Amino acid sequence: MTGASRNPRRNLSRALTCIANADVAQTLAAQDRPSPDGLPRIGITGAPGAGKSSLIARLAGLRKGTNRKVAVLAVDPSSPVSHGSILGDRIRMDAIADDPDVFIRSIPSRRAHDGLADNTADLLNAMEGHGFDEIILETVGVGQADYTIRTLVDTVVLVLVPHSGDAIQAMKAGILEMADIYVVNKADLPGADLMAAEIEQVAAHQSADEWTPPVIMASRNDPAGFEALDAAINTHAAWRANSTDAAVGRRARARYQAQGLISRRIDEVLEAEDPTFLDRSPAELFDAIVARLARKDPD
Amino acid sequence: MTGASRNPRRNLSRALTCIANADVAQTLAAQDRPSPDGLPRIGITGAPGAGKSSLIARLAGLRKGTNRKVAVLAVDPSSPVSHGSILGDRIRMDAIADDPDVFIRSIPSRRAHDGLADNTADLLNAMEGHGFDEIILETVGVGQADYTIRTLVDTVVLVLVPHSGDAIQAMKAGILEMADIYVVNKADLPGADLMAAEIEQVAAHQSADEWTPPVIMASRNDPAGFEALDAAINTHAAWRANSTDAAVGRRARARYQAQGLISRRIDEVLEAEDPTFLDRSPAELFDAIVARLARKDPD
Repeated sequence: MTGASRNPRRNLSRALTCIANADVAQTLAAQDRPSPDGLPRIGITGAPGAGKSSLIARLAGLRKGTNRKVAVLAVDPSSPVSHGSILGDRIRMDAIADDPDVFIRSIPSRRAHDGLADNTADLLNAMEGHGFDEIILETVGVGQADYTIRTLVDTVVLVLVPHSGDAIQAMKAGILEMADIYVVNKADLPGADLMAAEIEQVAAHQSADEWTPPVIMASRNDPAGFEALDAAINTHAAWRANSTDAAVGRRARARYQAQGLISRRIDEVLEAEDPTFLDRSPAELFDAIVARLARKDPD
Repeated sequence: MTGASRNPRRNLSRALTCIANADVAQTLAAQDRPSPDGLPRIGITGAPGAGKSSLIARLAGLRKGTNRKVAVLAVDPSSPVSHGSILGDRIRMDAIADDPDVFIRSIPSRRAHDGLADNTADLLNAMEGHGFDEIILETVGVGQADYTIRTLVDTVVLVLVPHSGDAIQAMKAGILEMADIYVVNKADLPGADLMAAEIEQVAAHQSADEWTPPVIMASRNDPAGFEALDAAINTHAAWRANSTDAAVGRRARARYQAQGLISRRIDEVLEAEDPTFLDRSPAELFDAIVARLARKDPD
């Protein structure tokens, strides 16, 4: 959109700020049809404190070493939630902030009905075509978000910490059955081996689709764990390319995005009306909203 | 709708089955504008195993004794989830099943994006006008559902069990700050007093709206706890009637219901189309869906 700058990070940053500040009509005007060969997307999910950000920094470094420049979108529930759309001042850079080949943008989980931000799909689309090779979506595992992340990314990595109760919570929520790769992070803590064994047992039962999720031990001082994760992501991506229909995945994303945009458009419509607009029968209200959903009046 | 039968339970059962089987157009056709004086609605939420059903049975018995006939809608995540809409065979009657003045219907958390069923609002509306005096909505506390229940009912009761980790989870999720009444159930278990004290501390901090949520101890063999809950519900209802604007609450419900119905209508539209319908740019897809949302083609 800007065209002038040849700084990929700056271009991507502007594109994201544009989408973050856009209303539904502006978002629709700014987004092309998704390319059949969009960037690979990796989802990293896990509870707060699981060490996702540090792990992503390490991972980004490794992937850059094999010529994969990574752009990270982190949905951060601790960011101030605002119904406005100012995002620029919430840019948060981490350990790899000075690396020109890595991009990180943190966004609040704005008006989310599923633990993500209601514009996550729009932002992910906007990350295409700025000179990066891969997208990482970082989310906090909060139940519903983990189902959505499955739709939005190609490879789901669940990060767990020994003795945190994470695994039990994840198992209860059925999340444990949705990841493609498990990381037992901070694996130098006691209980890590036991946790890994437990997860392996669960993971072995879910190979209905012929992918048996690996369980990887990682800790700050052991580079081998991060290298294993790096390799496992590539293995899964190769498996997925051979075993799943890219069109099915692309359509599921298009559907999710469209539903999110219509849902936001409903909010826009209702915010523009007087509260008494809602004093109707369900049928009258349905018709009145639907009549106002179009981006502009047809001429 | 049936008119013939003077059996209130049968009439209500038929009305709910009608809505449960209805598509969006049929739902809209069947529902009137909500009455300004709709039935009082009590939400009972808590983790599985918290003893909500037994507690509701006791409560229904007490309220019946003061001429409040209760109709219960239980959203049950353990019910088989079906994208179809057959509900009749999932009717589940509990301890009070033979009491003609109590009605219980269990529904699965169908296609829920928030832990509830996507037609919960429609079903609650359909429970009006069948000779019952109050509605109880039973839900499993799963984060997002607790925010929704706040919209759908007048009084939120959160049921917790000592040493279950419930309180910590609820606190983390911010749910603990959303209830109007807390019940420490199975209060004969060790740790109940400590849990009650902890909740009271949290509850005392949330009295911004001048309602300090009581913490009630309940256990199977102690009728006083259930009587205290019964009284606390009445006290909260009286406080709410004086302190909140009924129109605001009614409009929030209308809005939630309309958004749910439009979301379901989007699903209907997309299910009627070929998958390639989704192979469009975001703007084209938005326009194509919106053009199809109307219940019937305008003539």
